[in-house]
Parts: sequence; structure tokens; C-alpha cells
Amino acid sequence: MPESNVIFVGSKPVMNYVLAAITLFHGNIKEILIRARGRAISRSVDVSEIIRNKFLTDVKVKSITTGTEKLKTDDGHELNISTIEIVLERGGD
Amino acid sequence: MPESNVIFVGSKPVMNYVLAAITLFHGNIKEILIRARGRAISRSVDVSEIIRNKFLTDVKVKSITTGTEKLKTDDGHELNISTIEIVLERGGD
Repeated sequence: MPESNVIFVGSKPVMNYVLAAITLFHGNIKEILIRARGRAISRSVDVSEIIRNKFLTDVKVKSITTGTEKLKTDDGHELNISTIEIVLERGGD
Repeated sequence: MPESNVIFVGSKPVMNYVLAAITLFHGNIKEILIRARGRAISRSVDVSEIIRNKFLTDVKVKSITTGTEKLKTDDGHELNISTIEIVLERGGD
């Protein structure tokens, strides 16, 4: 998937990401990827649910995958952090 | 799935849920369901990742689904809250 169709969910308000996703879909993009890690994972699920229930009811969840990334802290320790990737698809089938 | 194979992830430390899941798998359960809602969704992904990466490497994610539940607050307002259900399977295929 091209980088421009990826929305990386962080600590901004949920609606920022929802609007970014809707803008992509309105630009005739058929599939977008919502990515998040750590505590933003909950927010990424909110983003996906709000898009599908409130704004674009023809959008479906195509796949959800989780993973683990290794981060290095400033003092050299390794940290594991969970990740999620939610692929949303519009007007599929 | 029987209620006894469901782990509801809340605000306790991650390892509580990891150990509960491992105990179920050691009791010869083949499939467990990890459920969470709201901000505990991130923690439920941590639980699933830690089980698979650190303890039971033959456990796979069978499916991940998300949803929305309606809650009533004390003052009568309705709140939407996101949910996640992660099905883990041991020794499948």
C-alpha cells in the first residue's frame, strides 16, 4: 500500500484521524491502512469504528493484524511495544 | 465458546491476564477468546503478543474483530465504546 494511504494514529484527538481517513476515501482511495502502537492502539480501533458507524457505512474492515516492535530507550534498554494494522476497504465485493 | 474460555482484559497488570491465558492453554483448552473495551484494548493486544512471543510460540491469532457497544452513563447519556475480540488458537493446522 502506498505510504499516502496510511494513517498513523498517535496522541491527537480521534476526530483528526477520522477526518484524515474520510478525506482519503473521498479522494477515491479504495483501501486505507490505520496503524498504531502502544496505548494508541485503543484509539485506532475508535477511529475505525467511528468511520464505519457514523460516516461511511459502506466501509468494511478487511483485515486486522497485530505485532510487536522493539524500541531502544535513551539509556540503551530494549522495549517491546505492541502494534496494530487495520485495513479498511470501501465498496468491496 | 464457553464462558470459561473467555478472558476479559481490564485494568489489572498485563501479566495477570497472560498467566490466566497460559493456565487455560495448559488445561488443554485449544482456543481462548480475549475481550476488552475502551482503553483496555491496547492492553489486550499486549496480552496476546506476550503469550505468543514469550510463552507459547505455537499459539496463533485465529481472528481479530472489533465492534462498538453502547453504554448508559449515570446521568442518562449514551456513550459509544469500542470493543475487541482476539481469538487465540493453540496447535492448529
